[in-house]
Amino acid sequence: MSKAISIFDTTLRDGTQGEGISLSADDKLKIAQKLDYLGVHYIEGGIPGSNSKDIEFFKRVQTLGLSAKITAFGSTRRKDSAAHTDANLQRIIESGAAAATLVGKSWDFHVHTALQTSLEENLAMIYDSVAFLKQSGLEVIFDAEHFFDGYKHNPEYAVSVMQKAAEAGADWLVMCDTNGGTMPHEVHGIITALSSNLTNVQLGIHTHNDCELAVANTLSAIQAGARQVQGTMNGYGERCGNANLCSVIPNLQLKLGFECLEEKALAQLSNVARYVSEVANVNMPVNQPYVGSAAFAHKGGIHVSAILRDSRTYEHIQPELVGNKQRVLVSDLAGQSNIVSKAQEMGIDFDATSPPAREVIDKIKNLEHQGYQFEGADASLELLIREANGQVRELFTFESFKILVEKTAGRSVVSEAFVKINIAGTSLYTAAEGNGPVNALDNALRKTLVQHFPSLKDMHLSDYKVRVLDEKDATAAKVRVLIESKNYEDSWSTVGVSENVIEASWEALVDSFRYALLEASPDEQILTPSIANPGLHNH
Amino acid sequence: MSKAISIFDTTLRDGTQGEGISLSADDKLKIAQKLDYLGVHYIEGGIPGSNSKDIEFFKRVQTLGLSAKITAFGSTRRKDSAAHTDANLQRIIESGAAAATLVGKSWDFHVHTALQTSLEENLAMIYDSVAFLKQSGLEVIFDAEHFFDGYKHNPEYAVSVMQKAAEAGADWLVMCDTNGGTMPHEVHGIITALSSNLTNVQLGIHTHNDCELAVANTLSAIQAGARQVQGTMNGYGERCGNANLCSVIPNLQLKLGFECLEEKALAQLSNVARYVSEVANVNMPVNQPYVGSAAFAHKGGIHVSAILRDSRTYEHIQPELVGNKQRVLVSDLAGQSNIVSKAQEMGIDFDATSPPAREVIDKIKNLEHQGYQFEGADASLELLIREANGQVRELFTFESFKILVEKTAGRSVVSEAFVKINIAGTSLYTAAEGNGPVNALDNALRKTLVQHFPSLKDMHLSDYKVRVLDEKDATAAKVRVLIESKNYEDSWSTVGVSENVIEASWEALVDSFRYALLEASPDEQILTPSIANPGLHNH
Repeated sequence: MSKAISIFDTTLRDGTQGEGISLSADDKLKIAQKLDYLGVHYIEGGIPGSNSKDIEFFKRVQTLGLSAKITAFGSTRRKDSAAHTDANLQRIIESGAAAATLVGKSWDFHVHTALQTSLEENLAMIYDSVAFLKQSGLEVIFDAEHFFDGYKHNPEYAVSVMQKAAEAGADWLVMCDTNGGTMPHEVHGIITALSSNLTNVQLGIHTHNDCELAVANTLSAIQAGARQVQGTMNGYGERCGNANLCSVIPNLQLKLGFECLEEKALAQLSNVARYVSEVANVNMPVNQPYVGSAAFAHKGGIHVSAILRDSRTYEHIQPELVGNKQRVLVSDLAGQSNIVSKAQEMGIDFDATSPPAREVIDKIKNLEHQGYQFEGADASLELLIREANGQVRELFTFESFKILVEKTAGRSVVSEAFVKINIAGTSLYTAAEGNGPVNALDNALRKTLVQHFPSLKDMHLSDYKVRVLDEKDATAAKVRVLIESKNYEDSWSTVGVSENVIEASWEALVDSFRYALLEASPDEQILTPSIANPGLHNH
Repeated sequence: MSKAISIFDTTLRDGTQGEGISLSADDKLKIAQKLDYLGVHYIEGGIPGSNSKDIEFFKRVQTLGLSAKITAFGSTRRKDSAAHTDANLQRIIESGAAAATLVGKSWDFHVHTALQTSLEENLAMIYDSVAFLKQSGLEVIFDAEHFFDGYKHNPEYAVSVMQKAAEAGADWLVMCDTNGGTMPHEVHGIITALSSNLTNVQLGIHTHNDCELAVANTLSAIQAGARQVQGTMNGYGERCGNANLCSVIPNLQLKLGFECLEEKALAQLSNVARYVSEVANVNMPVNQPYVGSAAFAHKGGIHVSAILRDSRTYEHIQPELVGNKQRVLVSDLAGQSNIVSKAQEMGIDFDATSPPAREVIDKIKNLEHQGYQFEGADASLELLIREANGQVRELFTFESFKILVEKTAGRSVVSEAFVKINIAGTSLYTAAEGNGPVNALDNALRKTLVQHFPSLKDMHLSDYKVRVLDEKDATAAKVRVLIESKNYEDSWSTVGVSENVIEASWEALVDSFRYALLEASPDEQILTPSIANPGLHNH
């Protein structure tokens, strides 16, 4: 039997059913590109019949030239109607996706309770829908919902559902543990029994993590003969999530000898997993298997000394195989190699032993020690590297800021910011109000800068995160602020750290504007002699 | 074969090896009480040979009268020495624990590389240490480190290690997958093979989650004949964590028919899991299986309508069996029953249909809709319920506050707060500095209040968390602040929400002081006629 496994990613569809996961069409396109780069075989983009965001995704993804097959999700036709008049099936075809994931019922209880139709009509719904999509030229992946529960209650019917989909020409028959309640030995037993009833079909597996067994159930299914895995990055998905591809793939490839991704792509798994968590705006748990920052971190004293003798003593794989790294220290210092490779990405040839390289590496280590974190703040990191290379021309300098927040019983809180910066030798003093102190600071700084650098008009803050670093120290603890900014073309992230939330926010804000100005025309300010709020100037 | 499973909790030992998990002796004692209430059979408290915090735990836990056996962790004696002179073994005995968890090597590679001794000496270390602890009257649980890796490389030696521990009288032989790299089918195969070489021993299983298979491997081991499970609450532990008891226990009991806990105790699992995450100061992932707040939350439209017809359609168990609840709405409104039961805890008989009950339920729903969250803010919730019952006597009222944050290039940032409150008809105006604006506010409010209510002297803030609620709205988004406060006896949590981080912090701060004053003597302020900062008063 072949060792090749087809990887079907449903982060953009089932993943977004998870609580707190919401992706715009832009976010989905960004993630699709990364998944394609990783080499997954199918990318399920969404439900074209459900909303305009998904329709936009399917339209725009066609222009990206991806290698992965794009697949659109939908249900079998409605009961007692024809497939070719079904609006949802029509939308799948119109989406332009090369493949359709068609979900149908395989548990008799659901046919009666949820669909409220007969077992025969459900079989007809499946046959008609698969056949119609096949006639329309699509590859069809048939997802049998609640297959394992269905098989346990009425094995004959569950098997007949699969047979019907196969007869109609489905390319893949996927067994879904929709409620996530099946045990690994049951998965193995049921698939083995099903296989004896079906020939010449390709089987797939789709599991949920309600019993913390989604990965184990997926492995069980593959060991029983399934050859497609449906799952999501970081295990996002409805309720407790789907099978986590970031664990399934290395288990299959490194432990069980199956082929999922190219070796080189597997070494990007941690990067892609972190990227997806950033775009989804969900913190990645430090202890996430394989790709989490603590997955190869050694804290115990005995462990550390043994690890230093031979890393096989306490590591089940080489972390580099999945793009992760060993950490034996308490502190989480960025490796030199990371910084050098980041510089290379920016087109700077950075010899790790040169004085500017040493300087910036020491500076970054020192900043990380203070609580800065550059994994989510690429623009701040780029500014540090360019600074060390003499590539940053400061177009404004900071002189001072003041924040006033005032609240009187029965009235709304008032927040004001007063910012003084220097542009080309002139002190400029501006005041602004805001919804809160940081918003007021942003408004004040922006007000002055836009007058001098009109390209900044298109820029706005798109994300703001606050993390208390040592929460046990209560209100005197350090705070880390991450800001994401956008213009029409680009987005970038910056970081600030301080015991003072206002100062940390200011740092991240200033870095964001400095980064935006890296590309500004040197003469831009000359084009805008008019100056805002002349009354507030302080020459 | 018996269906009874012995539950061995190592949250207090292996759990604290996890990154970001740090427990004081007080924290450990609180968690031990909850675990005992749940009915776990063993509580591993720590390593008495390692630090004074653990020694304090073992001393104080004896006064609590717990039913669970307390066990102390340590390694086999040092090579080439005697067990009775071994300082670590001595400390285990001195700890007063009823049981010892003794870890020994079972992988030949580790004996050579980490211990740097002979295979024979390692067997002697195991035999001598087990025998010495048994002679000292302790129950001995032998943890065979890296058992599965050891068995794969040298099965004869791994088996001889187990035989040696059994000969010396060990009560349990526990197979540890220390690096977490073993697959479920390997666990089953190796245990089946081992069992054929051992008779009359009780086997246990200790797994790690490096492949996201710790729960599956534990189930495999039990299905192969093991009868003790070592794991942690919420799966805390070194690197990717240990087997998560919050998933293992319901899987064994509700899915596979084993007996772990009393049914009534199992229905407290979600509460205890959340309590442990609060004490450990780690956010519980919403999608955590069985006990997470999204474990039975339904977002998909089709799912919700089916769930309303019959909850078995999309739920693998009744959530109440593990003390969790179904959530079918988009919003996360506190159920009436929660509020009524919370009131009962406070000794208030709250008929859900009475006008004050209706009023407080509506108010809480409204606040949750605005972003408040009371699961982590019990004191704010108690204040709302007592208010509705006319049980809150306000000892001070808010008049106004001002915050000034000032930063000039090259100088440190300065934060000042000006707070005006009214106590018994007198306006009191105070100023204070702080490390940041919230710290300044805390200092100013505290300065005035302590003068009038000296019992507040013992109170301090112990935790401060900031969460941006809709991060996509950047700096104009809402912010939720959670504050935990402590005095010598008690700790309590309060919440504030606003678009303005300062206002949200102020709300949570004020609630914290109001809660502290609930118990204050009504005449306390008369005892303290002296008034702080007379110059700042505003009569």
